[in-house]
Amino acid sequence: MIKVGIIGSTGYAGQEIVRILMNHSDAEVKWFGSRSYIDKKYSEVFGNMFCLTDDICKGEDMNELASAVDVIFTATPQGLCSSIVNEEILKKVKVVDLSADFRIKDVQKYEKWYGIEHKSPEFLPEAVYGLCEVNRDDVKNARLIANPGCFPTCSVLSIYPLAKEGLIDMNTVIVDAKSGTSGAGRGAKVPNLYCEVNESIKAYGVTTHRHTPEIEDQLSYASGENVIINFTPHLVPMNRGILVTAYATLKKDISEADIREIYKKYYDDEYFVRVLDEGICPETRWVEGSNFVDVNVKVDKRTNRVIMMGAIDNLVKGAAGQAVQNMNIMFGLPENTGLKMVPVFP
Amino acid sequence: MIKVGIIGSTGYAGQEIVRILMNHSDAEVKWFGSRSYIDKKYSEVFGNMFCLTDDICKGEDMNELASAVDVIFTATPQGLCSSIVNEEILKKVKVVDLSADFRIKDVQKYEKWYGIEHKSPEFLPEAVYGLCEVNRDDVKNARLIANPGCFPTCSVLSIYPLAKEGLIDMNTVIVDAKSGTSGAGRGAKVPNLYCEVNESIKAYGVTTHRHTPEIEDQLSYASGENVIINFTPHLVPMNRGILVTAYATLKKDISEADIREIYKKYYDDEYFVRVLDEGICPETRWVEGSNFVDVNVKVDKRTNRVIMMGAIDNLVKGAAGQAVQNMNIMFGLPENTGLKMVPVFP
Amino acid sequence: MIKVGIIGSTGYAGQEIVRILMNHSDAEVKWFGSRSYIDKKYSEVFGNMFCLTDDICKGEDMNELASAVDVIFTATPQGLCSSIVNEEILKKVKVVDLSADFRIKDVQKYEKWYGIEHKSPEFLPEAVYGLCEVNRDDVKNARLIANPGCFPTCSVLSIYPLAKEGLIDMNTVIVDAKSGTSGAGRGAKVPNLYCEVNESIKAYGVTTHRHTPEIEDQLSYASGENVIINFTPHLVPMNRGILVTAYATLKKDISEADIREIYKKYYDDEYFVRVLDEGICPETRWVEGSNFVDVNVKVDKRTNRVIMMGAIDNLVKGAAGQAVQNMNIMFGLPENTGLKMVPVFP
Amino acid sequence: MIKVGIIGSTGYAGQEIVRILMNHSDAEVKWFGSRSYIDKKYSEVFGNMFCLTDDICKGEDMNELASAVDVIFTATPQGLCSSIVNEEILKKVKVVDLSADFRIKDVQKYEKWYGIEHKSPEFLPEAVYGLCEVNRDDVKNARLIANPGCFPTCSVLSIYPLAKEGLIDMNTVIVDAKSGTSGAGRGAKVPNLYCEVNESIKAYGVTTHRHTPEIEDQLSYASGENVIINFTPHLVPMNRGILVTAYATLKKDISEADIREIYKKYYDDEYFVRVLDEGICPETRWVEGSNFVDVNVKVDKRTNRVIMMGAIDNLVKGAAGQAVQNMNIMFGLPENTGLKMVPVFP
Repeated sequence: MIKVGIIGSTGYAGQEIVRILMNHSDAEVKWFGSRSYIDKKYSEVFGNMFCLTDDICKGEDMNELASAVDVIFTATPQGLCSSIVNEEILKKVKVVDLSADFRIKDVQKYEKWYGIEHKSPEFLPEAVYGLCEVNRDDVKNARLIANPGCFPTCSVLSIYPLAKEGLIDMNTVIVDAKSGTSGAGRGAKVPNLYCEVNESIKAYGVTTHRHTPEIEDQLSYASGENVIINFTPHLVPMNRGILVTAYATLKKDISEADIREIYKKYYDDEYFVRVLDEGICPETRWVEGSNFVDVNVKVDKRTNRVIMMGAIDNLVKGAAGQAVQNMNIMFGLPENTGLKMVPVFP
Repeated sequence: MIKVGIIGSTGYAGQEIVRILMNHSDAEVKWFGSRSYIDKKYSEVFGNMFCLTDDICKGEDMNELASAVDVIFTATPQGLCSSIVNEEILKKVKVVDLSADFRIKDVQKYEKWYGIEHKSPEFLPEAVYGLCEVNRDDVKNARLIANPGCFPTCSVLSIYPLAKEGLIDMNTVIVDAKSGTSGAGRGAKVPNLYCEVNESIKAYGVTTHRHTPEIEDQLSYASGENVIINFTPHLVPMNRGILVTAYATLKKDISEADIREIYKKYYDDEYFVRVLDEGICPETRWVEGSNFVDVNVKVDKRTNRVIMMGAIDNLVKGAAGQAVQNMNIMFGLPENTGLKMVPVFP
Repeated sequence: MIKVGIIGSTGYAGQEIVRILMNHSDAEVKWFGSRSYIDKKYSEVFGNMFCLTDDICKGEDMNELASAVDVIFTATPQGLCSSIVNEEILKKVKVVDLSADFRIKDVQKYEKWYGIEHKSPEFLPEAVYGLCEVNRDDVKNARLIANPGCFPTCSVLSIYPLAKEGLIDMNTVIVDAKSGTSGAGRGAKVPNLYCEVNESIKAYGVTTHRHTPEIEDQLSYASGENVIINFTPHLVPMNRGILVTAYATLKKDISEADIREIYKKYYDDEYFVRVLDEGICPETRWVEGSNFVDVNVKVDKRTNRVIMMGAIDNLVKGAAGQAVQNMNIMFGLPENTGLKMVPVFP
Repeated sequence: MIKVGIIGSTGYAGQEIVRILMNHSDAEVKWFGSRSYIDKKYSEVFGNMFCLTDDICKGEDMNELASAVDVIFTATPQGLCSSIVNEEILKKVKVVDLSADFRIKDVQKYEKWYGIEHKSPEFLPEAVYGLCEVNRDDVKNARLIANPGCFPTCSVLSIYPLAKEGLIDMNTVIVDAKSGTSGAGRGAKVPNLYCEVNESIKAYGVTTHRHTPEIEDQLSYASGENVIINFTPHLVPMNRGILVTAYATLKKDISEADIREIYKKYYDDEYFVRVLDEGICPETRWVEGSNFVDVNVKVDKRTNRVIMMGAIDNLVKGAAGQAVQNMNIMFGLPENTGLKMVPVFP
């Protein structure tokens, strides 16, 4: 039984790790870390956990934690993981960082987009970007996983096959993304109040959102080019779900059917990626609560563009589910252990 | 492996049975019945099922069906199950009826409240009202289960201990209930359109809702009196969830703490009933997607009333989950097999 | 042109006063008071106001304010209005207090339920409870209006005719109320975040909500008895709207039609109260954005109870609209001036 | 007083015309047309109208209608208006068609995208595309107005200044749009049920949506080029609102501030177009219930693209409000008569 510690277990992503691991046959949460709710019962913070756990929220004594568990998930704001990780800890436990600290290999780029100093750039080279479908082999032997961001997970998996195959002009890529509100976290802020989010939609972080360089990096690796894109996230009045609508110009004449075949070539062996049938657009409701990524494409002969679409649950494949998927790979378990949740509808 | 057939598998409750059974270790859906979508792929009707089943919706050849499966769930409108059930079928398979056909023992009462003729009243005596926490022993040997309605499940479990103990004046019971919109079914009707339900709340079926006699019957059995209540359901702009706020006058001076002890006496061994801590009101979000019933009470010394509150997921404990719970009991499985879903939040 | 000052103009109720007065022919907001956003442009706080006002949020210099305007609305937390009102101010301006400070005539009762000391009990006798349909004549000459709470407005107007006529047993009155989330205010608190409220319903303040004594007082005045009730509010995932479902036992045999006639007798001359047709239940969507109160009754012969239902927009008739209605009466304007907004649907 | 007839008054857009005209000083609805609800009271179809009108829904006797009113609004499916309009009618009354029948000048293009035969192409030349801010002068003398579609209104007004000034490469224009659910109409269809729309987002009509040629036509007129674009609408779980996020490559080096100046040049005299301050993104909540269009731009120096954003209420500026605006212009009234509704928030 894998013993798990979670730093930041009282955020939405942290709680989702707990939810998933409660039905995981080979892992168990042993440390519910939380700065905000220290010494409080976890089930008082999340009423859904009542009767399912009696554990108490704990602080961040890293030595004690590293000795008590086999893997640590950090579901924390940027800067926390990089400030606590060190060789001693990594010798004891695996670390899956759900923050952005180890996603961007170029420390200057990280510091520019995130506006904070990186506290342990020495671990950037060894950190593995845990987009399992792309970097599975590296994940297997990793000590430190940079768990991908929610938007990058959905964007990259939606675009990857065409980027990799060199079929789209990477300079024309535009990613228009839409996210449920849980992506904004559980902090008490006026813009995230019910009445402020409900019955409205808005773009935010236009041209400046921090997931931009992360998407660009991954698309650059895939295409072998230096990719610069436009990425625009939108806030949608729903709890969960990310939808990506990505646009790019095709570099050669290729049919929609042929492109779908390419997607199938990449994803047919992937349990979590579902290439939808012709004409079916991804909808976030069909993946809610699950680790699935639904993708599809539409070719517009009039404009010679391809529209690449993807849907995920931002808290599962976009955070906690992918983190557990990475854990499974690192510990040699079947990749979908504990992750076969059927999407909950309605 | 229990082989399962579902008549009405393309309604919300039917689909929820499918979702639950996909993660059930000892049962498997073998027959996806649906009049409306016959010959269509099930995963085209419910996109969440894509890649999880390739089955095709079938009609209602009862002979074929009864030979192919071990248990039939009828998640259909009133009148369907009573028109197809017969001795021959019940000799071959167990039947769990999610409609109201066998919930009311008094056929005149059924016909009056439902406005239709009962087609097989001869099975009313043997049908077991499948409120597992109350009738578990009878369920074990049943051939035909009347799976309780969503409102009655939540109402009765919220009130049961005090009714049974004779601590409340049964003539004063008022049940004010609130339901998510999936309770209205998947039929295409103007009042259930998004824009009609969203941003509004209303009462409906005031004094005439068909779940009234069902609640009254069960409270009558519990209290040993002939109970007549007021039951008022409300439609809430959310997908899932039922909240019951029930009022009754206390027959003797008893503290809130003592009442909570009584609830614990009744429910402490029940996996699915959670008696909340003092001062905590049930909220539907904490049970969403799960088979839990959260209950609590509040005593008002000023008015000498007790307020009994309960929350369930109407599609799980209020329909599909309880149906599977009944199946588990009938087939000798641990009662919570396949039902240990952690509530999904947010 | 009536000059208006608003203390607390950056809460939801304060903003609603601004919205209403922008289309009021005889009044104009001259002072946008706000502690939180002082010196900030009002249209930066509420983007809907962009281009409609260039005013800047101001503090609470009461002398300056009282000299600058004809009427002050205090849309502030309890305790603020009672701490600033005095004879000097009341000689200069009319005051409409949207908080609870002057709603409860009994200062001990106020202090007990609200847990704060009342700073100016000397004004309690003269303050007029501004439920216009009931106290219109007193409002005309008032200097200080206690604008009714949102739940009391809806509850009292739903029950008033039967209480006044002595047709219901006042000891049996139970008010089960449901409110949209704007009633919780614009403060940044975790329980009011989008993801916490969305897809859920809960009761809160069970047996202890502060609107209880206010409803009891008004029903006591109406019935001539000392009324004690149960009042249970619920939080509904929608922005606006309050629905009241109230129960009481009838004292004599009277038909639903006769009761509806009584309601019409009381309300037929009231522009803002709509007695619905037989069998039509109030729904909050039909009053959203307007000052209407929709009421109706249903008699249950089985239990000898009457169910009294009412719906309002909590921010309009439940707060800002009624405040303007009171202003109109005090200043001798037609009562519906600026208040003829048609409910916005969908 | 302008006498108004509405064909299709029981759809969402038709009802919004009624709502707006109830507070219009110079116009009055005299004919509530509705095929579905003929002979039914209008206030039974829309409960918000209770006590505000006693009118009965009527059919489509065009001769009688044309004699009874001064202007007819057709808020009907495509094909209806073109099948009833004729010279005789246009000699008697003005017609504002909210359907697409007269929006596309090229009858072949219309028939191809809409899949129906055009019944009166002879009126296409004289019909004026009623985008008031662009075609105001032509509207003044029009007999037949093609009221713009909801997406085209928002898209074109968001892009117009840059298209007209020749500052963007028109071949690079991509319009990613998001709409509330009222845009789908009031027809009873499973995909528009509450539980199907709620908690989800999806793209639809990808590369094939019928508003595509309408947007292209208007951008072609503005730019003087033959414009082909990608247009992708999305369905958002909210009642009202359209948000447009449009992308284009800049043809020359120009600052965001300079572009905003251009927008102000075009729109500063427009009552209904609000050019937001630097860094402020349009949000649909700030225009809800009003006829405003909020627009802004963001320049991305990295990609040399401009992101043009706009927000409207789809039922007001995107349908009924703009229709009334056109009526006002045609009848020589101040353009914002009856349209000064302040956006309703929250």
